[in-house]
Amino acid sequence: MKRVYAFGEGNAKMKDLLGGKGANLAEMTSLGFPVPQGFTITTQACLEYLEEARGLKDELKDEITQAVKKLEAISEKEFNHSENLLLVSVRSGAKISMPGMMDTILNLGLNDENVLKLAQITNNERFAYDCYRRLLQMYGNVVYEIDMIKFDRILNKVKEDNHLHYDYELTADHLKDIVKDYQAVYQKELNHPFPQDVYQQIYAAVEAVFKSWNNQRAIVYRRLNNIPDDLGTAVNIQEMVFGNSGETSGTGVLFTRNPANGKHELYGEYLTNAQGEDVVAGIRTPVSINRLRDQFPEIYQEILELTNKLEKHYSDMQDIEFTIEDKKLYILQTRNGKRTAQAAVKIAVDFVNEGILSPDKALLTINSESLHTLLHPAFDPNALGQAELVSKLGLPASPGAATGQIVFDAITAKEWADAGKSVILVRHETSPEDIVGMNSANGIVTSQGGMTSHAAVVARGMGKCCVAGCSELDINEDKKTLAYPGGLLNEGDIISVDGTTGCLYIGEIPTVAGGANENLDQVLDWSRQFAKLAIRMNAETANDIENGLRFGAVGIGLVRTEHMFFQEDRLIAIRKFLLAKNPSDRKICLDTIRDFQIEDFSHIFELMQEKPVVVRLLDAPLHEFLPHGQNEIKQVASQLQIDPSELSDRVQSMKEVNPMMGHRGCRMGMTYPELYLMQAEAVIRSAMKVAKNGVAVKPEIMIPLVSSQAELIHLKDKIKVHLKKVLDEANVNMEFTVGVMVETPRACLIADQLAKDAEFFSFGTNDLTQLTFGYSRDDAGKFLNQYLDQGILKDDPFQTIDTFAVKELVEIAVERGRSIKENLKIGVCGELGGDPRSITHFHQIGLSYVSCSPYRVPIAQLAAAQSAIINA
Amino acid sequence: MKRVYAFGEGNAKMKDLLGGKGANLAEMTSLGFPVPQGFTITTQACLEYLEEARGLKDELKDEITQAVKKLEAISEKEFNHSENLLLVSVRSGAKISMPGMMDTILNLGLNDENVLKLAQITNNERFAYDCYRRLLQMYGNVVYEIDMIKFDRILNKVKEDNHLHYDYELTADHLKDIVKDYQAVYQKELNHPFPQDVYQQIYAAVEAVFKSWNNQRAIVYRRLNNIPDDLGTAVNIQEMVFGNSGETSGTGVLFTRNPANGKHELYGEYLTNAQGEDVVAGIRTPVSINRLRDQFPEIYQEILELTNKLEKHYSDMQDIEFTIEDKKLYILQTRNGKRTAQAAVKIAVDFVNEGILSPDKALLTINSESLHTLLHPAFDPNALGQAELVSKLGLPASPGAATGQIVFDAITAKEWADAGKSVILVRHETSPEDIVGMNSANGIVTSQGGMTSHAAVVARGMGKCCVAGCSELDINEDKKTLAYPGGLLNEGDIISVDGTTGCLYIGEIPTVAGGANENLDQVLDWSRQFAKLAIRMNAETANDIENGLRFGAVGIGLVRTEHMFFQEDRLIAIRKFLLAKNPSDRKICLDTIRDFQIEDFSHIFELMQEKPVVVRLLDAPLHEFLPHGQNEIKQVASQLQIDPSELSDRVQSMKEVNPMMGHRGCRMGMTYPELYLMQAEAVIRSAMKVAKNGVAVKPEIMIPLVSSQAELIHLKDKIKVHLKKVLDEANVNMEFTVGVMVETPRACLIADQLAKDAEFFSFGTNDLTQLTFGYSRDDAGKFLNQYLDQGILKDDPFQTIDTFAVKELVEIAVERGRSIKENLKIGVCGELGGDPRSITHFHQIGLSYVSCSPYRVPIAQLAAAQSAIINA
Repeated sequence: MKRVYAFGEGNAKMKDLLGGKGANLAEMTSLGFPVPQGFTITTQACLEYLEEARGLKDELKDEITQAVKKLEAISEKEFNHSENLLLVSVRSGAKISMPGMMDTILNLGLNDENVLKLAQITNNERFAYDCYRRLLQMYGNVVYEIDMIKFDRILNKVKEDNHLHYDYELTADHLKDIVKDYQAVYQKELNHPFPQDVYQQIYAAVEAVFKSWNNQRAIVYRRLNNIPDDLGTAVNIQEMVFGNSGETSGTGVLFTRNPANGKHELYGEYLTNAQGEDVVAGIRTPVSINRLRDQFPEIYQEILELTNKLEKHYSDMQDIEFTIEDKKLYILQTRNGKRTAQAAVKIAVDFVNEGILSPDKALLTINSESLHTLLHPAFDPNALGQAELVSKLGLPASPGAATGQIVFDAITAKEWADAGKSVILVRHETSPEDIVGMNSANGIVTSQGGMTSHAAVVARGMGKCCVAGCSELDINEDKKTLAYPGGLLNEGDIISVDGTTGCLYIGEIPTVAGGANENLDQVLDWSRQFAKLAIRMNAETANDIENGLRFGAVGIGLVRTEHMFFQEDRLIAIRKFLLAKNPSDRKICLDTIRDFQIEDFSHIFELMQEKPVVVRLLDAPLHEFLPHGQNEIKQVASQLQIDPSELSDRVQSMKEVNPMMGHRGCRMGMTYPELYLMQAEAVIRSAMKVAKNGVAVKPEIMIPLVSSQAELIHLKDKIKVHLKKVLDEANVNMEFTVGVMVETPRACLIADQLAKDAEFFSFGTNDLTQLTFGYSRDDAGKFLNQYLDQGILKDDPFQTIDTFAVKELVEIAVERGRSIKENLKIGVCGELGGDPRSITHFHQIGLSYVSCSPYRVPIAQLAAAQSAIINA
Repeated sequence: MKRVYAFGEGNAKMKDLLGGKGANLAEMTSLGFPVPQGFTITTQACLEYLEEARGLKDELKDEITQAVKKLEAISEKEFNHSENLLLVSVRSGAKISMPGMMDTILNLGLNDENVLKLAQITNNERFAYDCYRRLLQMYGNVVYEIDMIKFDRILNKVKEDNHLHYDYELTADHLKDIVKDYQAVYQKELNHPFPQDVYQQIYAAVEAVFKSWNNQRAIVYRRLNNIPDDLGTAVNIQEMVFGNSGETSGTGVLFTRNPANGKHELYGEYLTNAQGEDVVAGIRTPVSINRLRDQFPEIYQEILELTNKLEKHYSDMQDIEFTIEDKKLYILQTRNGKRTAQAAVKIAVDFVNEGILSPDKALLTINSESLHTLLHPAFDPNALGQAELVSKLGLPASPGAATGQIVFDAITAKEWADAGKSVILVRHETSPEDIVGMNSANGIVTSQGGMTSHAAVVARGMGKCCVAGCSELDINEDKKTLAYPGGLLNEGDIISVDGTTGCLYIGEIPTVAGGANENLDQVLDWSRQFAKLAIRMNAETANDIENGLRFGAVGIGLVRTEHMFFQEDRLIAIRKFLLAKNPSDRKICLDTIRDFQIEDFSHIFELMQEKPVVVRLLDAPLHEFLPHGQNEIKQVASQLQIDPSELSDRVQSMKEVNPMMGHRGCRMGMTYPELYLMQAEAVIRSAMKVAKNGVAVKPEIMIPLVSSQAELIHLKDKIKVHLKKVLDEANVNMEFTVGVMVETPRACLIADQLAKDAEFFSFGTNDLTQLTFGYSRDDAGKFLNQYLDQGILKDDPFQTIDTFAVKELVEIAVERGRSIKENLKIGVCGELGGDPRSITHFHQIGLSYVSCSPYRVPIAQLAAAQSAIINA
């Protein structure tokens, strides 16, 4: 059994044996990239150690010794050598990257004598002793489990005694003292000194890594992530290189292309005679990477060639850390570089044009989620630096940037906006009654509610910037004040809202415009070619629909009819309907509402032409349409000319303990069948109007919240019969379908029963997630953040699909539905329809389309293409 | 292909061919029971007819003619005969009984001439013409689809013209006129008269039955019930017999044993020279069956022998309809007789003693659900007849009978009860704060909420009589009045509450006591021998626990710790905890609560001894513990010595939109880990106290509302570590387990993940049903009744398990849980744990136990035995 592999002996496929890090270092070495050399101790050696539980085997020690000898030869350095001093790092490296295990010890090889040599080599006593004290500290803590506080106390005392604030202010003499004190800690805690023998240092460090595989945090992490316990971890031992060993040395970071705009140029910083830490400490200012061209033209040329090679090898723009040790270039790390969305789409298109990547592979280099920054305006980054923060703890609920005067209620928002002012609507949480005000506002801020709260969902639908659930704000809607940790704001004060980051600022900040660009158009064009999922939008208003169409939506996956009810004239009509005392009064109200709805739907069909449009019948609980609070009740009562106390009683009687699971959706349609028939009729009459111009409109009527077969049969039969009559009377032939919104666990499990009558399915993932977890979207804020912080949940299931239960329910529904109708059209119209990670799953499950808010259409389009490409 | 079978030619196994009814008639005939003879046209003939769509085949007509000839021979009657006149009925009879199809036409064979003969034979012209007009009406509607209203109008006009109220007041002359007018309807609607030829009548009726297989209602029914469309229906043609053909004829009904008390005696009524309808019309009063003994001793003897034979054949007490036609006895119908619970247990025990049934079979004759009437007091049936109703529209939420003075709030209930009064607590709906008052009341009445509302669930738990959701009542809790359709009641007025029927009465009604009896003890003894499921109880109070033990509960499946918090001293402590401003104040409160809980749990363990006890950690949302309404807030604020407005703010901030899916259960345990640890510690300290006496107590700690593996790991690890410390400090060795309440769809689907750490599962079927359907238990009342009425739901899923989705989730959870731990103990502690039909499913799924309220333990015990016996 071979327990140790030099980097030159392995390759990328040996992850099982060498761990992820080891296999990658081996691969880089085999490709000729200049990485500092070293060797990897295998996962098998780890398992052997853990099993036998008798310390490191002699065979392993021998192999390590051999590997060190080879490393000394390759690196042209030696342990304890006074000029070419070899130091090494020790790092764990399991097959799957795993927090909770021992991570890194640097500078092994230092001891009381070698620290002097290092000082001489680097001509930097301070550096040498700082390395040594770091080694002592990390080694003591990791290998011998000495409490870190014992070292920290010493360091802090020296700083206090000398009135220093920062570690970098410590002099070489301070550090020498600290090293002495640290060594005393060893003696006191362990009854033996820090091991001066380099091999002893390595053996103990390797054992510590091995043992850390079974420490508590690692075990819990594996249990939670279903990682097998019998993988073991590898250990990587690697030569340290020093960018601070003279004026022909240095260190730097670079991007192979400009990460801000994507331009093809080297972009980075370099610091002569320095280690990475010097850059971090910020004492010296690095210079542009281009200065290397003059200083070390050969090295610059080497870097240029290397970057091209790396870009080709990784097929992506690279972010590289490098060190030059006495004119010799080393890559310490290379990874795919982070970039703005603007850069990402340019680089992708350039890579295709340069022949580096085919379009499908190029699409995979773009983070689909990031595209939203291209679509919305953003604050000028320069101005942002000086802006005074109100809070940075808000949730980035709907991207974009907006500035305006604070208002605390929807009515004022509308009035001020009508008077030409820019306003920001600030509320505890919005409700459907705030819709008009939200529409008038430039941006929306709430102190409660999460990423899928009413404010967040509606704002995203409107493409309007929103910061939600900013719990630091203390909003008093009565007094019209907004207290924040730094002060108090009043109605009329100006704030700026960054819906992309969740930050709020005092005063006005200039913005830079967002919007489509040529590269994005090219990317979306390619995406449409590769995607299997069609992308629809959730939209009702002309503005939304036009946006969605501009971004390439091929249909509407969700018209939320209740949103159309909240306009004032409609609201009065629906209130009259709800409060009518006899069927004939009720009928009159319905006729009024029907005319409104025909107006609305006709607009939609005109804009959408032959593209399919799913209209969801009324879903919201009816009591949402009734006024709340005494003032509003009085106002509405006078509008409707009824007694306020009667109205109050009525509102009271319609109140529900858990409205989300109450009398809503198709349950309402069962109680008030005339309401659903009116809506269905309005859809068909609108479709007929537009069809007169020779357009083959495609209405799809969706029944929400179905949880039994009988509900569907009952309502669908009624609708079909009624609409047949309407069409017959008009002597028109028109195809329309009636489908089901699948959003309860039961609907998923009885999908075969539903598929007998449903002509399409559309998953309502918000409700499905709520019911599967038993989490109320409106209330989950109270514990969900804690759950995410503690890792109880890896992701917010309202933001990305729960890949256990919710996904399984979707799979079951698709399988059972299609067992009855092989080609059943199945979409998603919940929030997850616009989430790239969820889209990957929806693609795999074989859905027909996803539908999302208009501004997420490009994101969904790219994500759908990426899913198809990855799974091709 | 043989298309027609005489009753004598078939048997019980030929349901596919003869339908259910036909096969049963054949069986009776083959056993020699005196049923009126006839023949069955097969389901195959029906399918053939439907397929060929060319009317009745000549072959079939021939076979019918042959069968009629045989029938004439057997019955010694003939069509058109003037003395022995044969008339027949035609009935549909599919394999599976199916509403929506053509049902019955009586008296075929009558025509203008035969009606005269019938008048002469029965010496009753009125009867003959009434038969004829019924035939015309039914035949016209069913066979020729003439709208029933056309006949009704004629009948009503005659009644109006003659100032008559009831059909039976019509004279022979009236009926003759009606017959004439009915015949005119035929002429007008069909352009032909009512067919006078008897065979034509039969052929057309048979075709009508065949066709009705495909009528809309039948198709929809099959669609809803997944009955195949290709079964077809059979048609049964049977001789009519006449109990009104003279003084040696008659009709009656009888039970083979006394259905009220189970005594072994004939029990029934008889009317000489009469048809069944005469009994229904109530013009003449029937006499006791025993009078037959004197009038027709031979027939009485024949009946006696027959009843013994029938009891043995059907292995059950029979309810028999019979007719005597000229001293010849016919059984028209026999079925297992309905009986009281008292009779049922006596009959079952007697059947075993008489050697008719083995104990297992005897248990199957008892309706387990009915047992509850044996366990609770009931109103004296004699007094009930004269009592004045308040309402009969309440839900029978918790069985029993109680009388007392009306009070409208919990505090008064307690005060009056303490002062020695009997009180009935009347509320819109109860909340946990009413617990003390509920406990003090004799009975509970609510105007809102369903069978699983708070009032209902708590009352059942207490074994206290409750009528819930009586929507006719208009309760004004402020004014302390109760308006009902017939008047107004005030605080202090006396009412009587029948929780078994849902009725309310004015004034006091005497009761008869319930309770165990010897026969019941025997039945429960046998049940325990056969049941595979163990029966536990949901209980916290001494009273409940003693009741449950008396009924044979083998453990506690659910201690609801929140119920214990609602006692006043505890409530103050928990409120202080919730409102404490720093950890140390919080700690002090927790210590107080812990002492209370130790007191509570110690009592429980003392009572339960070595029987297992599942303690569920706090489940209710914490805001339930806070006061509501301004008055209560003021009161509590002064109790806690804090500012009322601060308390009000706090209550406001803890309010939730959908509390059922909010911050409760283990989510609370995550936020306030010290609360759960305190509770777990209290359990163990109590167990240790009782264990000191050498009792091997078995505490099982249950974590509620788990929906992720990480929640369980986190909480379980914390609890285990904490309790290990507690036990180590006390130097005690005690086994305890930590399990999971499985009550979200997600928990079911990730049951394999949960089973890794859970030491037992217990299904919370209330929440699971809520989340699976998306029905809020508290709000579903608004549509659930409508759904049940319209058949959208066959059963209330909170009362009996939804056999599609909820059952599947339970099955999935059991399968996945046991795939990890083969012998995982799995119970049910939701409401369905006490429902016999649900228990059948739980038995089949292989659960370990069900747990229910103490008064349902006998019911569950019997149901569990029945399930085991049926599935043995």
